[in-house]
Amino acid sequence: VDFRSDNVSRAHPAILEALLAANQGPAAAYGDDPATRRLAGRFSEVFERQVAVWPVATGTAANALSLAAFTPPWGTIFCHAGAHIAVAECGAPELFTGGARLMPLAGESGKITSPAIEAAIFREGDVHATQPAAVSISQTTELGTVYRPAEIAALADGARRHHMVLHVDGARFANALVSGAGTTPAALTWRAGVDVLSFGATKNGCLGAEAIVLFHPDRDARIVEELGYRRKRGGHLLSKGRFLSAQLEAYLGDDLWLANARHANTMARRLAAGLARVLHTAPHAPVESNQIFIALGAAVAAGLRAAGFLFHDWPGIGDGGCRLVTCWETTAEEVDALVAAAGKLRSAQV
Amino acid sequence: VDFRSDNVSRAHPAILEALLAANQGPAAAYGDDPATRRLAGRFSEVFERQVAVWPVATGTAANALSLAAFTPPWGTIFCHAGAHIAVAECGAPELFTGGARLMPLAGESGKITSPAIEAAIFREGDVHATQPAAVSISQTTELGTVYRPAEIAALADGARRHHMVLHVDGARFANALVSGAGTTPAALTWRAGVDVLSFGATKNGCLGAEAIVLFHPDRDARIVEELGYRRKRGGHLLSKGRFLSAQLEAYLGDDLWLANARHANTMARRLAAGLARVLHTAPHAPVESNQIFIALGAAVAAGLRAAGFLFHDWPGIGDGGCRLVTCWETTAEEVDALVAAAGKLRSAQV
Amino acid sequence: VDFRSDNVSRAHPAILEALLAANQGPAAAYGDDPATRRLAGRFSEVFERQVAVWPVATGTAANALSLAAFTPPWGTIFCHAGAHIAVAECGAPELFTGGARLMPLAGESGKITSPAIEAAIFREGDVHATQPAAVSISQTTELGTVYRPAEIAALADGARRHHMVLHVDGARFANALVSGAGTTPAALTWRAGVDVLSFGATKNGCLGAEAIVLFHPDRDARIVEELGYRRKRGGHLLSKGRFLSAQLEAYLGDDLWLANARHANTMARRLAAGLARVLHTAPHAPVESNQIFIALGAAVAAGLRAAGFLFHDWPGIGDGGCRLVTCWETTAEEVDALVAAAGKLRSAQV
Amino acid sequence: VDFRSDNVSRAHPAILEALLAANQGPAAAYGDDPATRRLAGRFSEVFERQVAVWPVATGTAANALSLAAFTPPWGTIFCHAGAHIAVAECGAPELFTGGARLMPLAGESGKITSPAIEAAIFREGDVHATQPAAVSISQTTELGTVYRPAEIAALADGARRHHMVLHVDGARFANALVSGAGTTPAALTWRAGVDVLSFGATKNGCLGAEAIVLFHPDRDARIVEELGYRRKRGGHLLSKGRFLSAQLEAYLGDDLWLANARHANTMARRLAAGLARVLHTAPHAPVESNQIFIALGAAVAAGLRAAGFLFHDWPGIGDGGCRLVTCWETTAEEVDALVAAAGKLRSAQV
Repeated sequence: VDFRSDNVSRAHPAILEALLAANQGPAAAYGDDPATRRLAGRFSEVFERQVAVWPVATGTAANALSLAAFTPPWGTIFCHAGAHIAVAECGAPELFTGGARLMPLAGESGKITSPAIEAAIFREGDVHATQPAAVSISQTTELGTVYRPAEIAALADGARRHHMVLHVDGARFANALVSGAGTTPAALTWRAGVDVLSFGATKNGCLGAEAIVLFHPDRDARIVEELGYRRKRGGHLLSKGRFLSAQLEAYLGDDLWLANARHANTMARRLAAGLARVLHTAPHAPVESNQIFIALGAAVAAGLRAAGFLFHDWPGIGDGGCRLVTCWETTAEEVDALVAAAGKLRSAQV
Repeated sequence: VDFRSDNVSRAHPAILEALLAANQGPAAAYGDDPATRRLAGRFSEVFERQVAVWPVATGTAANALSLAAFTPPWGTIFCHAGAHIAVAECGAPELFTGGARLMPLAGESGKITSPAIEAAIFREGDVHATQPAAVSISQTTELGTVYRPAEIAALADGARRHHMVLHVDGARFANALVSGAGTTPAALTWRAGVDVLSFGATKNGCLGAEAIVLFHPDRDARIVEELGYRRKRGGHLLSKGRFLSAQLEAYLGDDLWLANARHANTMARRLAAGLARVLHTAPHAPVESNQIFIALGAAVAAGLRAAGFLFHDWPGIGDGGCRLVTCWETTAEEVDALVAAAGKLRSAQV
Repeated sequence: VDFRSDNVSRAHPAILEALLAANQGPAAAYGDDPATRRLAGRFSEVFERQVAVWPVATGTAANALSLAAFTPPWGTIFCHAGAHIAVAECGAPELFTGGARLMPLAGESGKITSPAIEAAIFREGDVHATQPAAVSISQTTELGTVYRPAEIAALADGARRHHMVLHVDGARFANALVSGAGTTPAALTWRAGVDVLSFGATKNGCLGAEAIVLFHPDRDARIVEELGYRRKRGGHLLSKGRFLSAQLEAYLGDDLWLANARHANTMARRLAAGLARVLHTAPHAPVESNQIFIALGAAVAAGLRAAGFLFHDWPGIGDGGCRLVTCWETTAEEVDALVAAAGKLRSAQV
Repeated sequence: VDFRSDNVSRAHPAILEALLAANQGPAAAYGDDPATRRLAGRFSEVFERQVAVWPVATGTAANALSLAAFTPPWGTIFCHAGAHIAVAECGAPELFTGGARLMPLAGESGKITSPAIEAAIFREGDVHATQPAAVSISQTTELGTVYRPAEIAALADGARRHHMVLHVDGARFANALVSGAGTTPAALTWRAGVDVLSFGATKNGCLGAEAIVLFHPDRDARIVEELGYRRKRGGHLLSKGRFLSAQLEAYLGDDLWLANARHANTMARRLAAGLARVLHTAPHAPVESNQIFIALGAAVAAGLRAAGFLFHDWPGIGDGGCRLVTCWETTAEEVDALVAAAGKLRSAQV
């Protein structure tokens, strides 16, 4: 049973069916196909305003292109020290921006705050220093927590005071969206001041499909024009674009994305509750989406592995610290099996 | 009926079946899945030597990463003036190399020669000039012609005299391979001195799958190590890598790639022969693969379009110059229909 | 006697005196010193309009920064195939633009024309290709010829039609300026449509001082802001800036720059006339400034070298092709000595 | 009286004399002149081993080129959070490395330690993360302190364990050298494990001259070859190189560099002692070279400014925090005047 990551999961059957359906007759290449042409409209409905959309195959591409669109080579990008762009993309933001600077910040529960950014800004307007250009947050964060609209708005306000844009790495955007009651895609993004979103779909049921969503295409007309060149030049414009867009259409259709994310989050809560019950251990960070960070204890962790459960170690959060990730296809039986096994291992210890 | 490009074609059903088959259970992410781990072995069989392989989703990525692996920022890359890397990748080689220089060369039938490269080399070893680093040829060429092993060997010899590597943009490698009788993948690449190949599969039946094939992984151990970082940093390491590798496996399996390419080439020859018969016009370049460049005459070109045939204009090769591309799913009926329509249009003119 | 290049020459004594004079008391660093603050005013007088100025120590820096200011990473820069930026700066434009493309063009007498540029533009507005961004000409050209205002205006018109800027590599701007009767700095630049100039001073009497001159600082306010960061980031903002600015002030003061250039040009004409007289050979290109390209004949060239004259070979312009460069300190005696020696060598042959 | 920085100081008369002396007759350009050719020999004597040397005009260029020589685009450079490369070069390291990552570390007295670096290394050998490439320290540090040979050796050992090189930003190398009794240039660099040094001369008496010194030119033969291209491509190869090299020769001749630095350091100690006496305030960091960081108190700071003393505020080190820098031409009278003025201001307060 695999709790390593949501990207070890299969593609959802509906996504594969969409690929089969898209495989009819010839279709213009490089994004001039009907599915891709429908995409901006579909995303605009979802986000309740006219947006511009560029599908790409990886989240790293979505992040790096989004940031490059708004950050000059001498720009500074503020992000959490544990942000995916800072620790897991091998310098992609630097490559695509032409050498901008990431400024990693500490912050509780994987989140950064406007005061921390303010404190890190220096020599604004001075040619000797790189200049504030963008704030990038992850939604959900790398600790599985979720920024609330008010938190995002505060960051956006702070960003604007320094003429920065606010970018969201939404690799798990759906999981964040369904986490809070009554939140909408709009409320979680542009209404709170987000300028550009890396909209993730791969982890939540696609084969490999993400989208850059720009919320102010009119205001940012130059960015729109430039992004086309940036994407092509980065090797991220797929020739048979229909197969990328078809995934995204199916993902957004029938609210598959929301259903998948809700299920994954439910499984995570079930798992966290179960582990709390049998281990009497609180998770390292609030379980607000589909990731659990918890100190299982070394013996329990080892025992679970021996029993065939897969998950990643997570150093720095206590004895036997690990990350457990649920996804759209995690079953209650799998969750319960892990909880039961953990319970037995704990009992044997005591 | 669509003769615009082979990338308007569908994916072959066998490729989609492979995706469905790959969608079983969890699989390790980022290329650590079984399908990807099998890939180097399969390519090594095909090329009759131990090779290293990096699957990517686009040909532009394969080209840019291959070239960046061997070209320092102050390097010069010699290629045909009409090469895809020079006219259709929006500067991707420059982005990934950190600013290397493309040196476009003229050449008959889309091909470059060693003497032309020699003539273009200047200030070797002099810090004032960018330095010879790579020769890049397209196979098939952008005019649909095919480099023979002896031509490749001559280029490789010339390249080596200046410590350059030889790269092949094999977006249509299969079409080139089946073009000449008795040629093998090995004979067309490393045996003739090719160092690195962008192995194309998308145009010939995949959804979106290419591979960088490095022929001397032991000799080029540093390149091998670096390519992993380059690919990740470029946003070209897919998380659910199994879906990329499954395409390539199926493509190479049962010789699907060869069958598809043979069919496309056969259709192109049939089309060229038909057009020669009814228009009495020789193509602009020898029809050695699945592309035909021909001056249809403006009236015939317009008439065919009016009748629903799709194809691209190709300026500079005569009146009504156009490009007609066949692919794995082009039918003899489609070819014959275009020929018949062209014949009628011509008769009406006379 | 040294005719290799004008950059083998000494600094003019007046320039060194200016350095000594500038070496009084402390002065604010990084361009906030009085000499640097006076610079824009002085250049504005010379060019008869408000300009913005950034002093740098090398012509390569001036060129690369000027071009980077106006060229996105996916931009194309059109220039002569023999342009200094294309053959003698080791890819500096690529480094500073983040990977833009140089498009080398053929052209008589070292000059390019608008039709040649038009013919080389392709796929404008198409994301697959790099996009027209700048036209760069050298003044004087690399063959010592001089663009006339009307020629420049034609290039500027053509450039504007494609939203490109016109850059002048003025490494020998003074020599060009004094070449034509009645030309002014304004007439040779912004009045003819030049947007940005690399103003050279090193070859014509300085130790190492050039300046980027931007002719529309109001219109190009964003460029102005960005250039400060670009220069610093390139390592081209000198801490003790007074020593750079003092050179430029002295160079422009008392019309030293014009006197030096006039002398160099006069010596070149004398040399060309003398060689024509004794060798009966016309130079390869019109001698309009301080460079002579001429086929001396192999025996004469060898004989002159044996007699201690220094100059560079220049392949491709005939038997014994060479370049002879005069400068501010070349004497009539040196010129006459070379002519006399050439004459004797020729007589001996006949 | 100016205590803002050592780069507001004049050039030492001996340096200007050397320029005048170098201004004799023609000299080959681009570093092929006799003065430049003598440079490696002179530096080799100073450092007691065969070194390779590249003169440049700015410290930012020296740092960025040194780091780029050893750091791939996906490399990480570890440095103090207050390092000049991190806070005062506008991203030059990123530009010249092609987008490497700076990892800023905290550390007492402006120094970093091997354990801090160890703690910051993560995902070594993992393609998802940038990789350890270089450790860069400043000598003197940005707080005016000096790394001792044993401290350097410890950093070098740690660096080597991760296949990193050790770079020293020696903008004030002379001040560091004369700070400790019995230290030699060799002991402070390669004997302690330093691989490459940015050797500063501008702040200590030159007009604008620094040198990249590589300590293992044989071992690092590829670096040596590449640095020539990197420097040219960066616009940092001066055409009239003699004027750069002449400065460095004079600087090293007659031990001018050591005498200048000793004087500056002596003045700083005198200033620190004086301020301690009259203000009863210890400096923020040990005064080991020519910089003093001290909390003067707001009233004293303001009073000194009103009295015409120039210096920079330095936030974060207490009330009225400021930096006072002495240099080769600071006089005991100037120092005493500031101390006296500070004393009076303090008395008036009490």
